Amino acid sequence: MLIPFIPFFPNSSMAPPKKLKGLVAATITPMTPDGKINLPVIRQYVDYLVNEQNVKNVFVNGTTGEGLSLSIQERKQLAEEWMCQGKDKLDHVIIHVGALNLPECQELARHAAAIGADGIAVIAPFFFKPTNKGRELSQNRPVFPHMRLLFWTVRVEELLDGIKAQIPTFQGVKFSDTDLLDLAQCIHKNGTGEFEFLYGVDEQLLGALALGANGAVGSTYNYLGRQTNLMLQAFAKPDFALAQQYQFLTGEFLNFVIKLGFGVAQTKAVMTSVSGIPMGPPRLPLVAASGEFIAKAKAKLDSIVWPNGD
Amino acid sequence: MLIPFIPFFPNSSMAPPKKLKGLVAATITPMTPDGKINLPVIRQYVDYLVNEQNVKNVFVNGTTGEGLSLSIQERKQLAEEWMCQGKDKLDHVIIHVGALNLPECQELARHAAAIGADGIAVIAPFFFKPTNKGRELSQNRPVFPHMRLLFWTVRVEELLDGIKAQIPTFQGVKFSDTDLLDLAQCIHKNGTGEFEFLYGVDEQLLGALALGANGAVGSTYNYLGRQTNLMLQAFAKPDFALAQQYQFLTGEFLNFVIKLGFGVAQTKAVMTSVSGIPMGPPRLPLVAASGEFIAKAKAKLDSIVWPNGD
Amino acid sequence: MLIPFIPFFPNSSMAPPKKLKGLVAATITPMTPDGKINLPVIRQYVDYLVNEQNVKNVFVNGTTGEGLSLSIQERKQLAEEWMCQGKDKLDHVIIHVGALNLPECQELARHAAAIGADGIAVIAPFFFKPTNKGRELSQNRPVFPHMRLLFWTVRVEELLDGIKAQIPTFQGVKFSDTDLLDLAQCIHKNGTGEFEFLYGVDEQLLGALALGANGAVGSTYNYLGRQTNLMLQAFAKPDFALAQQYQFLTGEFLNFVIKLGFGVAQTKAVMTSVSGIPMGPPRLPLVAASGEFIAKAKAKLDSIVWPNGD
Amino acid sequence: MLIPFIPFFPNSSMAPPKKLKGLVAATITPMTPDGKINLPVIRQYVDYLVNEQNVKNVFVNGTTGEGLSLSIQERKQLAEEWMCQGKDKLDHVIIHVGALNLPECQELARHAAAIGADGIAVIAPFFFKPTNKGRELSQNRPVFPHMRLLFWTVRVEELLDGIKAQIPTFQGVKFSDTDLLDLAQCIHKNGTGEFEFLYGVDEQLLGALALGANGAVGSTYNYLGRQTNLMLQAFAKPDFALAQQYQFLTGEFLNFVIKLGFGVAQTKAVMTSVSGIPMGPPRLPLVAASGEFIAKAKAKLDSIVWPNGD
Repeated sequence: MLIPFIPFFPNSSMAPPKKLKGLVAATITPMTPDGKINLPVIRQYVDYLVNEQNVKNVFVNGTTGEGLSLSIQERKQLAEEWMCQGKDKLDHVIIHVGALNLPECQELARHAAAIGADGIAVIAPFFFKPTNKGRELSQNRPVFPHMRLLFWTVRVEELLDGIKAQIPTFQGVKFSDTDLLDLAQCIHKNGTGEFEFLYGVDEQLLGALALGANGAVGSTYNYLGRQTNLMLQAFAKPDFALAQQYQFLTGEFLNFVIKLGFGVAQTKAVMTSVSGIPMGPPRLPLVAASGEFIAKAKAKLDSIVWPNGD
Repeated sequence: MLIPFIPFFPNSSMAPPKKLKGLVAATITPMTPDGKINLPVIRQYVDYLVNEQNVKNVFVNGTTGEGLSLSIQERKQLAEEWMCQGKDKLDHVIIHVGALNLPECQELARHAAAIGADGIAVIAPFFFKPTNKGRELSQNRPVFPHMRLLFWTVRVEELLDGIKAQIPTFQGVKFSDTDLLDLAQCIHKNGTGEFEFLYGVDEQLLGALALGANGAVGSTYNYLGRQTNLMLQAFAKPDFALAQQYQFLTGEFLNFVIKLGFGVAQTKAVMTSVSGIPMGPPRLPLVAASGEFIAKAKAKLDSIVWPNGD
Repeated sequence: MLIPFIPFFPNSSMAPPKKLKGLVAATITPMTPDGKINLPVIRQYVDYLVNEQNVKNVFVNGTTGEGLSLSIQERKQLAEEWMCQGKDKLDHVIIHVGALNLPECQELARHAAAIGADGIAVIAPFFFKPTNKGRELSQNRPVFPHMRLLFWTVRVEELLDGIKAQIPTFQGVKFSDTDLLDLAQCIHKNGTGEFEFLYGVDEQLLGALALGANGAVGSTYNYLGRQTNLMLQAFAKPDFALAQQYQFLTGEFLNFVIKLGFGVAQTKAVMTSVSGIPMGPPRLPLVAASGEFIAKAKAKLDSIVWPNGD
Repeated sequence: MLIPFIPFFPNSSMAPPKKLKGLVAATITPMTPDGKINLPVIRQYVDYLVNEQNVKNVFVNGTTGEGLSLSIQERKQLAEEWMCQGKDKLDHVIIHVGALNLPECQELARHAAAIGADGIAVIAPFFFKPTNKGRELSQNRPVFPHMRLLFWTVRVEELLDGIKAQIPTFQGVKFSDTDLLDLAQCIHKNGTGEFEFLYGVDEQLLGALALGANGAVGSTYNYLGRQTNLMLQAFAKPDFALAQQYQFLTGEFLNFVIKLGFGVAQTKAVMTSVSGIPMGPPRLPLVAASGEFIAKAKAKLDSIVWPNGD
């Protein structure tokens, strides 16, 4: 399971950074039918997230956004467009800057800072991986003022020991594993609220909330953000029966589409179908969702009766 | 992840079965130094669970009990001893009757019924596995009056469709996976409270409770049953901060011993250390926990400060 | 990958044991339509292997024989029948005595010795596994005169260091992994010909022969033993082009059926179809091969044109 | 297991391409102590491979060369330097052009053609993967004149059906899996010698040769090329005992270093130690081999007595 880390930039060197809570949409990258990124759609996308889904934080160029299938230039253009269109509308724009090669990763990090992004995130290495456990921290080299890239594949809980000394601007973790023991230990050992823990397995978010997660990053918040926000409210009340009802229903949809084969290409199609925003086809090696999938997924989603009467 | 199913016997063909809730200790099988099962210790074990851990349900001859390392005769003797010593003290005695070969499995099931066990459980096949999906249900043969063995490896949620027709006495599932989407769907689709869902990953029980699990089966309830019961109470109140505190602390212990290497042999040693009851060595192919492990595990457990002042 | 070890019994305490070379059929267990073992068929089975397939060694009660789905009593009966019917016809009868629990394993080993089997084999533990690496050898206990059970999951090559001191009658390994580095090291380090290495991945036997394997144990030798014997002859000549031709053709069949779903149940059906001997259905949890599979597999086998004109 | 495919460019549109046989060194990328690529070392590297190892084919920018940790610009510079220094000395220079994103992959392919490389190779997708099996071939789009990128993760044998229609210049496969059934089927179904099959698991090359592989691509041929060439000669003779001896000895070295932890960083250190050419440190996320590893690996290599008296 890949575990991206989220070190945030401070907004300024003086002011404490804004706290990131609640839902973060892992954004889709809109493309034209011939496979180019479709920048003009971002404006509409921002408005949709804010007005229709009540989601004001985005995670750009991540896996859902096919970030690793884009060129460096494309990733910069997208980041700039989200910053531009999100101005005064979005609370947090986090740019994923992970890449297989370190020079490009550093270049993207510098760019994110230069355009004023609220934070960056870096996927853990997944092709080459560090093997000399215990040596990585001491060998990390400065990548960006006040920020160092950190590569690790062990338990997240171990990683957080002393991380502030390594990455002074480190602010949190996107935790995308079903192993809640590790998550609980992370939260517990950083109990002063120093860091934020955003959960990344949408279909069991309620379990993570019970263990103390601060919020969530996920692709379903693009089109089920409003319902999930209602789940967060029910949990905060607390009204467990209601929160469970929301989690069951989003799970029922996901369970259904997972059996049909569900990935980024399918997410793109579902979002197009739900929002009316043309997200376009995915880029190779992904291939577009079939018409049959789209029809079935839409029918399933339409059939769900939400507690709030939707 | 192995998923044992728990079809309970009715106490009588008329009366509805007792509901199983709360904690179920996955019992250890005490052995003598020369590797024989140590039946006389069971009496003391029952009293310890009831009086010291406030745990009144047991799951006998499961993985924690090295059930599959025991001969059929040994498994029967153990089941009888738990029934005998647990009389008027324990609420539920569930006997695990799974075996690699069907004749022995059936023999154990008949025996459990004959001695009046409150239920049986059967591990899913793990050596040979059914491969012709969709055919298994129709090919299941009667194994025991009112009970059929069910072998399946797909999502538990799919399994439960129509299971009452197959196994009229079916009452619940021990769900031992971190995939809470599946668990939530199981609970949701059986929302009338028809079945019971006992969670089997001790270190993230709180997450499963949030999704609606009815209770838990696990090895840690042998020696951390009392603390976990307090977690259940805090959750029911609800006092989340307190419930999280308990979950964090049991997790801290488990996290510590998992890094040292933690399995049934080590559980046996920890239980001996905590309870004072001589659980003895494990049977080959397991090998006894090292003295170093035992010392470190004990020190860790002793160092934990529980909210209730322990 | 499971790696059964084969310690052979000496025929007598004085005479050196017969060397086991060439092909060993991993035998199927014939069953009646109602799921009982069909002992009377064994006689015909022996004659078929010897006369039609030119295979004179058998491996009884292994995975192909559904050994772990049989009761202890059934396994003893089968072993006795193979010994009885194979007398003066077969060269080696090896009895697999592995079981999940040590007492039954020991009982089966004693029985195999008592009925005069040429050797026993034991599957490595696959449910509980030893975890304290380095301690197993010293903790092995005598199981049978001149024989100790050995449980290990590391590289086979490491296992063989000093194994004669542990198991004086140890004679060889059934090596069933595609990792030929390990196999080559095993053969090399035991270069005096002390042990025998029988390869267990039928579809790439030629590769193992090139690295020095002495023979093979497999299920396909039940019905493709004659062709595989011709491959062994071509390799010994050496006539590589011809040996490759045989390996390609058996591979073509296996490749075809693997895509359809190929396991013990399907092997049983293929053998019935090819030999005319009624092998019957498999035992649950396996389910019988479909009629469609049987028809397709037969048509494929019939379509192959072997170099020897078959 | 990643399976890169090798479509070669024709040297000219008229002349048939040169056949690629024997050993291909998967080249290391030399780096300076501060982590930049060390181009001036390539000249010495070419001479070493040709004169000391008798290896005249190279595979540049692959996994061993940390190709995916380099920027596009660095990959182009390296490819150019190998073409320049290899002129009139090397037989084949194959450039790996795989990248996570298609635009960069296409750019590298065009560049390789422009500088006159003898062929390109493309790793199969390993982050996003095509999931709609059966649709990929029809959806592949032209990437380069006479060349299309092909992404697939199924059996290689299935891939080759009709591949010439998709990729007219397709010439062969680097097959890097221990599954020799698949390899044998590939070779058999393309029996006219149309394609070349280069095996990529160095430690069991002899097994692949027995099944008909044409040659090999691997990292050990950088420093054990000469010995492996002698193995190829012994196999061609055929002198099996001698060929096995070479395979055993390279396996003994690999077996030894694998237990110590062996990857690209360690390969780099071994090559520096054996050849005297300063390969430098690896790039993050890889970390340099420890001094202890280097000393042990060197001692092991020095201790091996090769049949040819080395």
